[in-house]
Amino acid sequence: MTGAEIHAAQAAGALTWLHEAAAARAKAGLSRTLTPRAPRSTVLDLASNDYLGLSADPRVLAAAVAAVREWGAGATGSRLVTGTTELHAELETALADLVGVPSALVFSSGFMANLAAVAALGGPDCLVVSDAGNHASLVDGCRLSRSPVAVTPHGDLAAADRALGGRVVPRALVVIDAIGSADGMLLPLAAWHALARRHGALLVVDDAHGLGVRGNGAGSVAEAGLAGEDDVVLTLTLSKALGSQGGAVLGAPAVIRHLVETARSFIFDTGLNPAAAGAALAAVRILAADMAAPAGSGLADSVLARAADLAAAAGVPATDSAVVPVLIGAAAQAHALSVALLERGFRVGCFRPPSVPVGTARLRLTARSTLTAADLERFRTALASTRAVAVGGSAPEEGQRA
Amino acid sequence: MTGAEIHAAQAAGALTWLHEAAAARAKAGLSRTLTPRAPRSTVLDLASNDYLGLSADPRVLAAAVAAVREWGAGATGSRLVTGTTELHAELETALADLVGVPSALVFSSGFMANLAAVAALGGPDCLVVSDAGNHASLVDGCRLSRSPVAVTPHGDLAAADRALGGRVVPRALVVIDAIGSADGMLLPLAAWHALARRHGALLVVDDAHGLGVRGNGAGSVAEAGLAGEDDVVLTLTLSKALGSQGGAVLGAPAVIRHLVETARSFIFDTGLNPAAAGAALAAVRILAADMAAPAGSGLADSVLARAADLAAAAGVPATDSAVVPVLIGAAAQAHALSVALLERGFRVGCFRPPSVPVGTARLRLTARSTLTAADLERFRTALASTRAVAVGGSAPEEGQRA
Ligand SMILES: Cc1ncc(COP(=O)(O)O)c(C=O)c1O
Ligand SMILES: Cc1ncc(COP(=O)(O)O)c(C=O)c1O
Repeated sequence: MTGAEIHAAQAAGALTWLHEAAAARAKAGLSRTLTPRAPRSTVLDLASNDYLGLSADPRVLAAAVAAVREWGAGATGSRLVTGTTELHAELETALADLVGVPSALVFSSGFMANLAAVAALGGPDCLVVSDAGNHASLVDGCRLSRSPVAVTPHGDLAAADRALGGRVVPRALVVIDAIGSADGMLLPLAAWHALARRHGALLVVDDAHGLGVRGNGAGSVAEAGLAGEDDVVLTLTLSKALGSQGGAVLGAPAVIRHLVETARSFIFDTGLNPAAAGAALAAVRILAADMAAPAGSGLADSVLARAADLAAAAGVPATDSAVVPVLIGAAAQAHALSVALLERGFRVGCFRPPSVPVGTARLRLTARSTLTAADLERFRTALASTRAVAVGGSAPEEGQRA
Repeated sequence: MTGAEIHAAQAAGALTWLHEAAAARAKAGLSRTLTPRAPRSTVLDLASNDYLGLSADPRVLAAAVAAVREWGAGATGSRLVTGTTELHAELETALADLVGVPSALVFSSGFMANLAAVAALGGPDCLVVSDAGNHASLVDGCRLSRSPVAVTPHGDLAAADRALGGRVVPRALVVIDAIGSADGMLLPLAAWHALARRHGALLVVDDAHGLGVRGNGAGSVAEAGLAGEDDVVLTLTLSKALGSQGGAVLGAPAVIRHLVETARSFIFDTGLNPAAAGAALAAVRILAADMAAPAGSGLADSVLARAADLAAAAGVPATDSAVVPVLIGAAAQAHALSVALLERGFRVGCFRPPSVPVGTARLRLTARSTLTAADLERFRTALASTRAVAVGGSAPEEGQRA
């Protein structure tokens, strides 16, 4: 071998394990590929988290454009240096007002907001009780917190109570998703809050899928009457019902101050870009104005009604949100079904391990307030005929988490 | 007490530690507050990371606006569901081409890109050798990786060599920042690569501050002749020289595939918003076109020249990048100096613990290609007169990391 060949072989050697891992994933039906969308596609979207259609709303687009012109393409620095504009401050006030919480802090994503809330409020002297259904960003927040962590079965209040009761450190944090991103079901927030309070713990609630959908648009925490409670910390994303990008933590001023001064995913990250901040602010204002709509006619009520229609069309029970899972089981089969539906003009989500437990791969349908009866009828027919055809019947059951 | 009063007292109790922690930070001179910028401020920016002024470049703004109109305000879902548009794919190709690497993957921030690269390429069977000067996002990537981690003194090749030599696990990853975000100095990348290769390790290089600045704009890795090496993984941010938001990992196709299929900060995060993707793409194209400029006249060369002028104006040695630190020492004194400069019309960064080691608080100046001789002369005078005035002379030395 020449020197160059030896070098190439050495470099390739460092990648061998990657090829082996990829082959193992392929064997388990867990390969994933990116398929770019075209603009103005005619495919019916039953997969996005743009629950209210606001990512394409003319008022939201105009606000994004105005923000670019006024503030530029980027925030230019971290929030504590040059990355806080008046637009960021305005967005924080509007979010806090919408939900009815004293203060808010905006992040570059909901993922980063969750890392901040859990990592900066936890710590070695703080037990974190984390629901097993929690989003990956909350789980990663637990890992970064250096806290002792007790993972309790999804929705199991009694298990959380036992974990809190047995704690040997001075503080505790209870961490939940208000609405499961894979099951679409709402946890009983008042009971979780009572539990946390009984143990002197802070309750961190991620309402990524509740904002704009529950509580007449103000979200699950406001609906449960918990907005403004000092011991509740609320995290949000600006990327789902608000149709933009970014995240936020809402809570007592002391909590927000703590995050500004200590949260690594806040301090060491460039501020949210102006277009996204401007779009999210316009979306918050639309939601706030919409709250005055007569009962049952607002955006939030209409997306819940469409979600119930969608569940009926798919022949599954309705959920508490815009997320409607259709359980399939084997990963390869769920994937084949989603591909077949795309070929017929319907984009649906497909959640496989590690997003969901092994053996519970599912189609993940999402409703939008703009779905029509005709859309749903077309989908009902397509799903039934697709399922009737054998798709990947005896797919291997995946055995490990990637 | 009434029931309501008892409840309020219980809720407040859960926050007591926050007030104590805030008081301790204040005492150590480590309080931080957000000060929103106004649009079209007359303050001279010596603090942002918008090194080439592209965040306000008309071509970049026009591309952001066009992307909003074509693709909407948000990506609407995670990259593997609905969040990959043709625009994202185009940006990935353009980034890879600019640097000379086979493939690229775009994230919602540089922070998330770094979490992905380290956490998904590390693991319990992989030693991570992490330079002590690394950015917080690389450090958090190490923590999330569940790898055994050896932190070696900043820039210490021999220490990294010893750590790699003593490893007992099959794989290894060496993780460095090409340019220190607090000191502005470039590490000898070829030597780091030779070290990694000798040990069969992958080298992860974060070039957040090198892209657009070093290597005629293509960055530090291209400048060192390492672009396209299979065992080099490059991470970038789109939020500094590119003037937008977002991050990217560049490397061999097998590396990118591995991240698509396993990186939690990729899979479980909404795709980058179209405005930011469009702006970054326009910025990449400006850099690519600029490479044809005669030597010394391109954007990257001009920002390095302005950085040398800025260092001279501040009376400190020049660095390898647009980042020019002015060491002060005590946190409170550095902070007071930055406030005094702001009052005189100059915005400078102030890095205090935990961003830098205790006792090394500093002004962090950054150069832009658009700085004029008159700007720099005004700054020289202002800095000298501000430093001459006693600012917070005997500030308490901070004793702990927040
Ligand atoms: C429950 C939940 N929390 C947090 C997030 C993260 O939000 P973002 O996409 O803004 O990072 C998501 C989805 O992405 C989610 O489903
Ligand atoms: C060295 C370094 N790496 C990564 C990042 C993170 O990039 P982003 O702001 O896009 O999250 C930064 C700055 O923010 C940085 O300075």
